Amino acid sequence: MQTIRFSDHDILKMETRLRAAFINSLSGFKSGSLIGSIDSKGNTNLAIFSSVIHIGSNPALVGFINRPDTAVRHTLENIMETNCFTINHIHQAIYKKAHQTSARYPKDISEFEAAGLTTEFSTLLPAPYVKESRIKYGLEFAERHDLKINGTVLIIGKVVEIIFPENCLLPHGALDIEQAETIAISGLDSYHSTNQLSRLTYAKPEKVPDKII
Amino acid sequence: MQTIRFSDHDILKMETRLRAAFINSLSGFKSGSLIGSIDSKGNTNLAIFSSVIHIGSNPALVGFINRPDTAVRHTLENIMETNCFTINHIHQAIYKKAHQTSARYPKDISEFEAAGLTTEFSTLLPAPYVKESRIKYGLEFAERHDLKINGTVLIIGKVVEIIFPENCLLPHGALDIEQAETIAISGLDSYHSTNQLSRLTYAKPEKVPDKII
Repeated sequence: MQTIRFSDHDILKMETRLRAAFINSLSGFKSGSLIGSIDSKGNTNLAIFSSVIHIGSNPALVGFINRPDTAVRHTLENIMETNCFTINHIHQAIYKKAHQTSARYPKDISEFEAAGLTTEFSTLLPAPYVKESRIKYGLEFAERHDLKINGTVLIIGKVVEIIFPENCLLPHGALDIEQAETIAISGLDSYHSTNQLSRLTYAKPEKVPDKII
Repeated sequence: MQTIRFSDHDILKMETRLRAAFINSLSGFKSGSLIGSIDSKGNTNLAIFSSVIHIGSNPALVGFINRPDTAVRHTLENIMETNCFTINHIHQAIYKKAHQTSARYPKDISEFEAAGLTTEFSTLLPAPYVKESRIKYGLEFAERHDLKINGTVLIIGKVVEIIFPENCLLPHGALDIEQAETIAISGLDSYHSTNQLSRLTYAKPEKVPDKII
């Protein structure tokens, strides 16, 4: 199999759209989530993100990267206004609707309605959940970092509520996100289901990892 | 199907290991990467990360979250010392070796040797690649953000070199990371292969997304 080597000069020479597709596939498989938010007037917003990442377990923190100059700027504005948001896993039956939320709708149009998804509200926070999503959680805004290098923003939230199907909770504490049919994303537009290869034991210097299952 | 709702009080009451497994599964599927680094004396280091994320395409930027107080602190120290690192996709044939790099080895032991993986060097940067990895790229340190809320660190690198199999480059610019057998991770210890559901067209307000393939 032939190996290709690109330098930064080769990357710079790529046509803009090809480069966007190329660089977006470098980071590997990505989470697929819908972020729900609300402004102070009660307008709801929903946007798809592939940049949600685990920040810490104690306290429970999850973050995401927001590009402020695009269709997702309403998400950032709403979180700054009302101090909360929801993250909703995308599963196989709703990934096309989830993708549609990336279209550039004006602020007075809710992507929930435009994409055919349903708002669901909790008493713990004003931001809307996605009713059709199976695993979802609510967060209070915790910390913001503005990245100087390209104007994107890292938003970190503290998890205050988690909603999930009973049959997805595994004995060792993890949620079985494959059982929930949560999808993975690669690049800008490719959606994937998964098959578990195995779980591996906690690694120690003196021994080789075993399969747990 | 019964739905369960956990509040932040329920999360706090969980036993520490159960909570770590639970919260780590919230963010959805994660990338699986080996980060290669080197100190100023030439000692190489290799560590598995599931927090690598896309930051931007132009300039080409990729980031990851580093926990400074664990087995991965050598990665952070090395990047601060020599200003560069490599990110190497984990594929199905090497995921058990990759997992083994998470064991806590002393600084004078290279995880390459301990895990049975091979260093590979480029003329463009001193940090080591993983020879067995199929898709891999080299980065110059670009920006650091220390997260006040839990002491983790966001490291962002500028991509300066990309190495990949010729048969993985798709006509629209993306790399076919499924073809390269790149794995996805869920939670702390679960490894997954993927099956593409479809690629979807660029979303516009007035139309429903179509399948490209």
